[in-house]
Amino acid sequence: MTALTTEEAAGHPNGSAVGRIVLGRNQYGKAEVRLVKITRNTDRHAIEDLNITSQLHGDFESAHTEGDNSKVVATDTQKNTVYALAKDGVGSPEAFLLRLGAHFTESFDWVTGGRWAAEQYGWDRINDHDHAFSRNKSETRTAVLLVEGARQHLVAGIQDLTVLKSTGSEFHGFPRDRYTTLGETTDRILATDVTARWRYSTTNTIDVDFNAVYASVRGILLDAFATTHSLALQQTMFQMGKKVLEAHPEIEEVRMSLPNKHHFLVDLAPFALDNPNEVFFAADRPYGLIEATVEREGATDESAVWANTPGFC
Amino acid sequence: MTALTTEEAAGHPNGSAVGRIVLGRNQYGKAEVRLVKITRNTDRHAIEDLNITSQLHGDFESAHTEGDNSKVVATDTQKNTVYALAKDGVGSPEAFLLRLGAHFTESFDWVTGGRWAAEQYGWDRINDHDHAFSRNKSETRTAVLLVEGARQHLVAGIQDLTVLKSTGSEFHGFPRDRYTTLGETTDRILATDVTARWRYSTTNTIDVDFNAVYASVRGILLDAFATTHSLALQQTMFQMGKKVLEAHPEIEEVRMSLPNKHHFLVDLAPFALDNPNEVFFAADRPYGLIEATVEREGATDESAVWANTPGFC
Amino acid sequence: MTALTTEEAAGHPNGSAVGRIVLGRNQYGKAEVRLVKITRNTDRHAIEDLNITSQLHGDFESAHTEGDNSKVVATDTQKNTVYALAKDGVGSPEAFLLRLGAHFTESFDWVTGGRWAAEQYGWDRINDHDHAFSRNKSETRTAVLLVEGARQHLVAGIQDLTVLKSTGSEFHGFPRDRYTTLGETTDRILATDVTARWRYSTTNTIDVDFNAVYASVRGILLDAFATTHSLALQQTMFQMGKKVLEAHPEIEEVRMSLPNKHHFLVDLAPFALDNPNEVFFAADRPYGLIEATVEREGATDESAVWANTPGFC
Amino acid sequence: MTALTTEEAAGHPNGSAVGRIVLGRNQYGKAEVRLVKITRNTDRHAIEDLNITSQLHGDFESAHTEGDNSKVVATDTQKNTVYALAKDGVGSPEAFLLRLGAHFTESFDWVTGGRWAAEQYGWDRINDHDHAFSRNKSETRTAVLLVEGARQHLVAGIQDLTVLKSTGSEFHGFPRDRYTTLGETTDRILATDVTARWRYSTTNTIDVDFNAVYASVRGILLDAFATTHSLALQQTMFQMGKKVLEAHPEIEEVRMSLPNKHHFLVDLAPFALDNPNEVFFAADRPYGLIEATVEREGATDESAVWANTPGFC
Repeated sequence: MTALTTEEAAGHPNGSAVGRIVLGRNQYGKAEVRLVKITRNTDRHAIEDLNITSQLHGDFESAHTEGDNSKVVATDTQKNTVYALAKDGVGSPEAFLLRLGAHFTESFDWVTGGRWAAEQYGWDRINDHDHAFSRNKSETRTAVLLVEGARQHLVAGIQDLTVLKSTGSEFHGFPRDRYTTLGETTDRILATDVTARWRYSTTNTIDVDFNAVYASVRGILLDAFATTHSLALQQTMFQMGKKVLEAHPEIEEVRMSLPNKHHFLVDLAPFALDNPNEVFFAADRPYGLIEATVEREGATDESAVWANTPGFC
Repeated sequence: MTALTTEEAAGHPNGSAVGRIVLGRNQYGKAEVRLVKITRNTDRHAIEDLNITSQLHGDFESAHTEGDNSKVVATDTQKNTVYALAKDGVGSPEAFLLRLGAHFTESFDWVTGGRWAAEQYGWDRINDHDHAFSRNKSETRTAVLLVEGARQHLVAGIQDLTVLKSTGSEFHGFPRDRYTTLGETTDRILATDVTARWRYSTTNTIDVDFNAVYASVRGILLDAFATTHSLALQQTMFQMGKKVLEAHPEIEEVRMSLPNKHHFLVDLAPFALDNPNEVFFAADRPYGLIEATVEREGATDESAVWANTPGFC
Repeated sequence: MTALTTEEAAGHPNGSAVGRIVLGRNQYGKAEVRLVKITRNTDRHAIEDLNITSQLHGDFESAHTEGDNSKVVATDTQKNTVYALAKDGVGSPEAFLLRLGAHFTESFDWVTGGRWAAEQYGWDRINDHDHAFSRNKSETRTAVLLVEGARQHLVAGIQDLTVLKSTGSEFHGFPRDRYTTLGETTDRILATDVTARWRYSTTNTIDVDFNAVYASVRGILLDAFATTHSLALQQTMFQMGKKVLEAHPEIEEVRMSLPNKHHFLVDLAPFALDNPNEVFFAADRPYGLIEATVEREGATDESAVWANTPGFC
Repeated sequence: MTALTTEEAAGHPNGSAVGRIVLGRNQYGKAEVRLVKITRNTDRHAIEDLNITSQLHGDFESAHTEGDNSKVVATDTQKNTVYALAKDGVGSPEAFLLRLGAHFTESFDWVTGGRWAAEQYGWDRINDHDHAFSRNKSETRTAVLLVEGARQHLVAGIQDLTVLKSTGSEFHGFPRDRYTTLGETTDRILATDVTARWRYSTTNTIDVDFNAVYASVRGILLDAFATTHSLALQQTMFQMGKKVLEAHPEIEEVRMSLPNKHHFLVDLAPFALDNPNEVFFAADRPYGLIEATVEREGATDESAVWANTPGFC
């Protein structure tokens, strides 16, 4: 059925010399715990709406190899813990994940770390009402905390923030080979869904106002997208990340994943109509996909948090 | 707005000492190129249905920093290349990705590697008809190729394969703390959506029948799920991976991400009815999430391919 | 802000003569009750997996106008009832909906009817195992029951059954106007997602083997799609419905909604390659949408059930 | 395989007396034409972003029964027409659908009517920028036009507008039967996704500022949700519709479909914590589903437009 190369087969005669099969990296927990926290100490209520995932790292080998659950903190227990800790307030997704991480690593000797993640959904007041809200769906706030023993890696982010420029975007000067048919353009629509994540430089003794940084980064990303005259989505993306790092010394790196959402100019010539960049077909698939890290020179080594955070190169 | 810790602030007075901001790892290309290839050299047609993503790695710094596109092989060109190469046949997603990777790295000096990924969708013949088919949606086949200079990392996979055991699953013996309310059980429904990826041990001189391996691994995963009397989903998962590795020496490691899709026994007692594991509520969220790598002892270092492959620890 | 036509404004001076505002048609209940029923009277288990919606019709005016809930059978109670009745078995979605409808209309004087709907998901045994299954996701079975006093309207259906012919489909002879650019073809891919619903001619004293009819109709739809040489998707659709009605006298009408899922031949000429119907781009949007009713001549008047069943003309 | 009741079988002996099988109601066209129109007659651009479906009614019988396409205005032609007409501007989804309907019914003798539908997506300016926008995803605007000969039925709507009250909602006084377990409450979260559609009373000589009415109705719905002290979602819904009709004499009826998105208070007692309406679990399924029409007394007969507009009773 399969035929390995000579070199490979020599190493594994009959498959018998392939070595013992063992458990590698692993994690487990409860995913997508939907938490709504109402703060109601006055008549003017506040709402925090999150989707939280808790996963533990540690010594769980016997559960895998023998079905021994004596160290398996039940995923149901992890869910209960999320709700119990929320009684004291959330504050920000980052702060809440830090509390969850501390709780689990301090409560169980064999839990050496873990991964905690959150999405937060925004709500606006309806006409400044005290307790009536409407969901602001224009973006989702994200956070991921990875704890490895004494090390903490904290990443915040924004996703699904859809932006578009109706002019101020060019694309030309690219190489042409046998398979190139695309024309050059000095005026096109540029549109993308911003997914960005930024990693904080230290988290052990963190004293950052995470909500303020989120608002600031969001504003910088929008402004940089709007004001950069674009020669390539790569260029716009780099400017977006660079401006975030310039304004926020507490951020070590920014990773972005930006689809190039194509808007094709419709050919109206068969109908005896011109189309000076007015009527477009918004395509679904395929789309360009532009991804990069923008970081400080001499950045520390790759953080382990990224191994568990999808969508980035 | 933000207040760093003393140690941190000392390193970055006024944010001026944070260093030059530079481009880190990056990739770009065309995502989700929907390709349907009909092989029709006889009246009995065959269909291959794929969704392909091509992303290049290499020297693209000036595009980011200066908007210089002179090395930016257009994503449109990458799409065209997918269709042009498909004219000669697909064969398997793995083989097709290897052709794409070779094409791009050989065609452009500054392209040092890249990431190519595919999903493949299955079709069954309708009543053994020569050219009429129905989509088999019960699973999706996946493949990812990462090329880094002379190194190739090839991962194949299956996803969205939903399985369920109506008995033969227990869960007890787990630790109890302040936040534990879950009861123990010796008979529960066990259900999951299998997402598994397996990495081939060598790909430079690959001579594997990828379609045959896919069919075999799929069968092993299903069989191991069905026949393992489960004390924990972790145990079932480990058996699934172990049996794949035992049967396939050409596979170096298997990574799985398995949601524990909870089926809660409905309490019918208020209605004066018993419920001996017959009537269940299938819950959406939250769900358990169990993830692990099963590998050969003394496995080589972490493959870089995983940094770009979401959903695995 | 708004300016009505003279005729209209005359009827509603100052908006004061527009008449009292009243409650019109209404219904309420619990939607998407996820029910998994295991039949385990022998070691060979069976599984039924459904998603059930229950909505009541009747005298609920005071709940709307005054917030008087004295007649509002709680949606939670409706959910409980679904689970309690499932204890005695499901059998088929149609039979189960008939039991739900009878229960609610017989239990509450003011409930004069209602709408009950179900989706059923298929499961295959893994290697003929007694209690291990894998989800067959290739289609979804549907049923809707509308009760209006003594009248019952019962509709069964299938949806998301994706089919494709790689040849045996033409499209030409259509009219050409100023806005027509489409070329004629004698060989194209024809692909669609079958959504079909069939209405039973009587349901008060129903004695139909619903599972057998479902299997038969499914087979007829697939066979008719495969064997009809197609000059238009309309023609294929009509044949599909006609053959169902010919085989099933207990069915009064069939309604179908079929997207024409375009597969565009890729132009490989710029790459010096021909493309004799081999390499296609599978497009997402837009798509054709072809919908019709196939019925017996002199059919009874429009059934009220369709007012609540989306996706049909 | 099937066994009809005696009465039924008598009418259809051997299935031979069931009558000729004929084409019933039908429609066809192009669905989900994604149109982005940039108005750029000054440096301050405007964007209109729509998803349009065009379906024709008329004499298409021979296409179904014989595959004769001589009257089948190609769906591709319908798509082209959408783009060509957009060159002259969109204005509002309602106005654009009226233009489409007039075009098709005037251009082809055998086209007696049709159904045209649109979704419109909102965009906000980024920092009041002239040509940079971000998508406002908090709601979707909808419109449906049904033309039947000389009659036009025009419906506008809003969907996916998610709202929540953290107090000011009660639910009690409902009947209790064998299957009732729900407790009564005088303080609960009330949350829903508003889907509302309003039908204009006349459209033949329409002179309504559709954008102004949309903004007004949206505001009324939000305000009525926020300010109604709720004893049942039915009551809140009725108030929402009533206030729209009171303010807008040009609207004949309002139909709403409101899920009751359950937020369950988490029981923290096992952890020795109280929970005075602070910590909630936001459930996915099942959910309540409350639907009604609010209309003027003595309203005209049921409009045919509703037969094609899903999600309403």
